[in-house]
Amino acid sequence: MEFLKDSSKNTYFIRLEKDENVFRSLEKLAKDEGLTCAHINGIGALKDVELGFYHLDKKEYHRETFTGEYELLTLVGNLSLLDGKPFYHIHTSIGLENFSVKGGHLFDAVVAVTVEIELRALPFEISREMDKGIGLNLLNMCPGH
Amino acid sequence: MEFLKDSSKNTYFIRLEKDENVFRSLEKLAKDEGLTCAHINGIGALKDVELGFYHLDKKEYHRETFTGEYELLTLVGNLSLLDGKPFYHIHTSIGLENFSVKGGHLFDAVVAVTVEIELRALPFEISREMDKGIGLNLLNMCPGH
Amino acid sequence: MEFLKDSSKNTYFIRLEKDENVFRSLEKLAKDEGLTCAHINGIGALKDVELGFYHLDKKEYHRETFTGEYELLTLVGNLSLLDGKPFYHIHTSIGLENFSVKGGHLFDAVVAVTVEIELRALPFEISREMDKGIGLNLLNMCPGH
Repeated sequence: MEFLKDSSKNTYFIRLEKDENVFRSLEKLAKDEGLTCAHINGIGALKDVELGFYHLDKKEYHRETFTGEYELLTLVGNLSLLDGKPFYHIHTSIGLENFSVKGGHLFDAVVAVTVEIELRALPFEISREMDKGIGLNLLNMCPGH
Repeated sequence: MEFLKDSSKNTYFIRLEKDENVFRSLEKLAKDEGLTCAHINGIGALKDVELGFYHLDKKEYHRETFTGEYELLTLVGNLSLLDGKPFYHIHTSIGLENFSVKGGHLFDAVVAVTVEIELRALPFEISREMDKGIGLNLLNMCPGH
Repeated sequence: MEFLKDSSKNTYFIRLEKDENVFRSLEKLAKDEGLTCAHINGIGALKDVELGFYHLDKKEYHRETFTGEYELLTLVGNLSLLDGKPFYHIHTSIGLENFSVKGGHLFDAVVAVTVEIELRALPFEISREMDKGIGLNLLNMCPGH
C-alpha cells in the first residue's frame, strides 16, 4: 500500500499492490493514521472475492467465493469501529470476462493487479453494535444514548 | 434516519432505518437542513425496488418493481431542485441471492435492513428543467441565463 | 459540458451533454482548469460503450463495444497524468432494458442523454508509469523515488 494524504481535507488517495489483502491493508491504514470514520470509493482488479447476501429471515449470510480475477467496478463503503477496532463495511461489484457483473457484501478479497481508492476521513467516532432484531452490527449514531 | 454532520465540510454520514422510504427520508433531510445541492453515495440493503430504463426514442421509462430483499451495491446520485423542492436523481445496482446484479434509474425503494449514505452538500442552487428534445428534467447549470 | 465549481473545496459539479465523448470532455476540463489529480463519480446514460477486461496472464485487454443506449449506473475513477497529460482511469457499470448489468474498464463512451459527475480535485501530481510485470500503467505514488 502506498498513499498520498491531503492533510487539510483528510483525503487519502491510496494504491493497493498486487496480492495485498484489501481488508488487512485498509485496517492497517486506519490504525497507523488513527482513523475512526471514513467513506471509501475505489476501482481496480480483485481476485479470490468472497461475497455475501444477507437473509434477514434466517439472520445469516449466504456466502460464495469467486476465484479467478475480476475487474473491480465498485468498492463502496465506510469505516467505523467494532469492539474498539477499525471495521470496514464494503459492498462490491465485479466484472467478468464476458462483461456480466456479480456483486454483494464483501467479506474478503485480494488485489489482482492494482486497486485505487479514495478514502475521506470523517471526524466522527461511530461504533457498530449488534441489533438483535436484524442480526447484524449496525451503526450506533448516538453513542451517548 | 439518524445522521452525523461535519459542519465545516458539510458532509453528512446517514443511517436509514429498516422500512424507511429512501426518497421520503432523503427529501426530509434536505428540507430540514436547507440543502439545495449534494452528491450522495451509499450501500446497504433495499426491498421493493422500482427501477427504470429510459427509452430516448419513446421519451418514456420502462419500469419494473423488484419485490423481495437485495443487497444495495451502489446508490449514487445528486440533489437538486425541481419546482423549488428537493429532488434526488439516483441510479442504483442491487445484488441478488445468486450474486447476479440488477440496476437502473431508481424510482422508489424501501430500506430492507439498513442503508448507510455519505451526503456531501454543495453550495449551489441548481434547478432541473424540462428538456423537450430529451423528455427529461435536466440540470440547468446556468440559472441566470 | 457545463459545470459549477466550489473553489474553496475544489469540487466540480459537471453536466455532460448528449453526444459528447466522455473522455474528451473530461480531458478538456482537466486542461482548462489545470487539474492533475481528482476522484470522479457519476451517473446518467451512455451509448457506444467500449468496455475492457484485463487478462493479467496475457497482459492484454479483452474489449467489446456495446452499441445502443444504457443507463449509466456507476462511473467511478480518477485523474492522474500519463506522459504529462491528463489521464482518466474509469470503471463503469451500465444497465440494460431488462435491468441486467454489464461492466468493465471504460475505454470509450458517448453521452446518450445526460451525464452528471462530481469531480473532486486533489492537490497531488501523480504520474502513471508502465509496470512491465503487470503490463499496465500504474500510479507512481512516489515520483521523487
